Amino acid sequence: MPEAHAALNDEFYMRLALQLASAAAGQTGINPVVGCVLVKDGRIVGMGAHLKRGEAHAEIHALNMAGAEAEGATAYVTLEPCSHHGRTPPCSDRLIREKVKRVVVAATDPNPLVAGSGLAKLAAQGLEVRSAVLNAEAEALNEAFNKYIVTRLPFVTVKSASTLDGKIAARGGDSKWITGEEARAHVHLLRHRHQAIMVGIGTVLADDPALTTRLTVPGLNPIRVVVDSTLRLPPDAQLVRDGAAPTVVLTTGQAPPERRRALEALGVEVIDCGPGPAVDLRTAMVRLGEREIASLLVEGGGKLSGALLGAGLVDKLALFLAPKIIGGGALAPGSFDFPGSEAMSRAIRIDRMNVERFGEDVCLTGYPRYVSESEE
Amino acid sequence: MPEAHAALNDEFYMRLALQLASAAAGQTGINPVVGCVLVKDGRIVGMGAHLKRGEAHAEIHALNMAGAEAEGATAYVTLEPCSHHGRTPPCSDRLIREKVKRVVVAATDPNPLVAGSGLAKLAAQGLEVRSAVLNAEAEALNEAFNKYIVTRLPFVTVKSASTLDGKIAARGGDSKWITGEEARAHVHLLRHRHQAIMVGIGTVLADDPALTTRLTVPGLNPIRVVVDSTLRLPPDAQLVRDGAAPTVVLTTGQAPPERRRALEALGVEVIDCGPGPAVDLRTAMVRLGEREIASLLVEGGGKLSGALLGAGLVDKLALFLAPKIIGGGALAPGSFDFPGSEAMSRAIRIDRMNVERFGEDVCLTGYPRYVSESEE
Repeated sequence: MPEAHAALNDEFYMRLALQLASAAAGQTGINPVVGCVLVKDGRIVGMGAHLKRGEAHAEIHALNMAGAEAEGATAYVTLEPCSHHGRTPPCSDRLIREKVKRVVVAATDPNPLVAGSGLAKLAAQGLEVRSAVLNAEAEALNEAFNKYIVTRLPFVTVKSASTLDGKIAARGGDSKWITGEEARAHVHLLRHRHQAIMVGIGTVLADDPALTTRLTVPGLNPIRVVVDSTLRLPPDAQLVRDGAAPTVVLTTGQAPPERRRALEALGVEVIDCGPGPAVDLRTAMVRLGEREIASLLVEGGGKLSGALLGAGLVDKLALFLAPKIIGGGALAPGSFDFPGSEAMSRAIRIDRMNVERFGEDVCLTGYPRYVSESEE
Repeated sequence: MPEAHAALNDEFYMRLALQLASAAAGQTGINPVVGCVLVKDGRIVGMGAHLKRGEAHAEIHALNMAGAEAEGATAYVTLEPCSHHGRTPPCSDRLIREKVKRVVVAATDPNPLVAGSGLAKLAAQGLEVRSAVLNAEAEALNEAFNKYIVTRLPFVTVKSASTLDGKIAARGGDSKWITGEEARAHVHLLRHRHQAIMVGIGTVLADDPALTTRLTVPGLNPIRVVVDSTLRLPPDAQLVRDGAAPTVVLTTGQAPPERRRALEALGVEVIDCGPGPAVDLRTAMVRLGEREIASLLVEGGGKLSGALLGAGLVDKLALFLAPKIIGGGALAPGSFDFPGSEAMSRAIRIDRMNVERFGEDVCLTGYPRYVSESEE
């Protein structure tokens, strides 16, 4: 028996609740993913996850499954139960009404409307409360929500696929394929888990991509966002024609009005982000946040990724590295094309770097830290 | 108890013999590293490793330790015992004379003077022989020797330290430090384990490096090899002055004779590698092989690493990646500066990529495959 399952304890049930939550990643919109497990007299009596924004929370699904068995049970919930009336009634009220005896929570809700009040309400009603069980795992699961709920800005993940010498294409532009099948399948899982996907107009003109989620089972397609300061997006581009998901174009005051009208007539949403010449990326993030996009996956190219990183707008990196070297010097584009720093000590540090393998490729993930330091 | 030690069997003792061999990596010159364990009646009666070229082989040390106990023992040897008279008498003769009963071997000797004849000799004398126990581990331990003994060319390992965007310096040239302490300490272990270290003259002029092995305990300093087509190496460079290890300069017919005489007068060995303008790298490898350099660690910069890789002369890569992004576009030098291919499908593939962590950094190692393919 693997050690992780050796002990039947609070962590055992919370891990299951986290698995339920994780499975729903990508399908709750700007809402967090949450899992709940109800346990009574040594056995599971209910399980649930929040599956869709506007519909039942995890606790409600689990309580419905448990029925009368909920009385006297322990509820394991990955996120503090809500105490406010949102699109659904407060979960803490329902837990109290069903006479749940004990509530174990992984993370408190950063939502200013909750922020500990859910736990306080439960405790005030005499329920036994334990918090911060598997807290780090629960926080990681909702890193996008945790940022958005406080800042109203999307959590931005930049994905790149490069050779070991940091190139995203050969000289001349050929980039098919850098990584192998497993890595590319994981990128489609990332698309499924993000509300929106962003590319530069250069990538659209070069590749005419669909930016949809293509896996062996159907997935959710993200909203497609194109950074296109002068509206060069062709009306016959896949993104405009295929209707697979909404397409949003971020542009500037320098875009010709007739192109804007033409694109809007084809169903494309055009959003102004400053006077130009380039799209103001900070404004872009505010606009996307207002449009209720809480998680954004950036898929290049190097100029867009570099500009976002240089502006301090990237929250997370997912860098796929293929076991190959292509060369090409300055003629072959790199993964992050931006001026950067003159001093190595002022490089953008990547915190909590994690390494995963996908077939022959590796994926490094981490979190940029923008405070300049000279600690080395 | 860890599973690897659960079974007391041939692999158990061979693993110990491999550890003895591995410990001596770097101190046997062009000779392979070899370990030997003698076991009799359920206990170890002798252990040995080949420690220095020209001195006793692993089997001899182990037999000396065992004394009369060798009779009837099993010998675990990581490399097939030699059957020829080299600088020392054949080990197979000694094993026979001491009446060892059984010989277990990890790898056969690729040396054309041995190549199976050692095992045949033992079997012909009635010793029980088992081969290929932990063969892959043993082969990896002597990958440099295995190439050199057949081709007389050094096994070339290119080490680089870069940011996640593939840069080995910021724009302007600052490169101190990219990787952290643990990674840099490992580079010094690599120096200890290689007979020679190679850099381009650009690196010498920029950094005036010592290229010595600096660890908390003394290590062996590699021979310093500088690729310097016009002999720009300054007579007051550390490599010329410090006397810490021999310095070899590879140059061309375009080097001014007076500079050559000046460097030679200071004890520097100057080797001609073609008419120029650039050092002929293939010729360089032949010359270094003739000079009995079997293992060469290349420490950059990007132009030298790229030129060697582009010429198909690199056997192994050790790419340290620091968790940081520096940007700088074409102004910041990359880890492999060479023309490369126009097609991504013709990129140089890296086989058997392995990932290790050193503090916050990662190190990817692998073996370039130069056959062009379009398998993706």
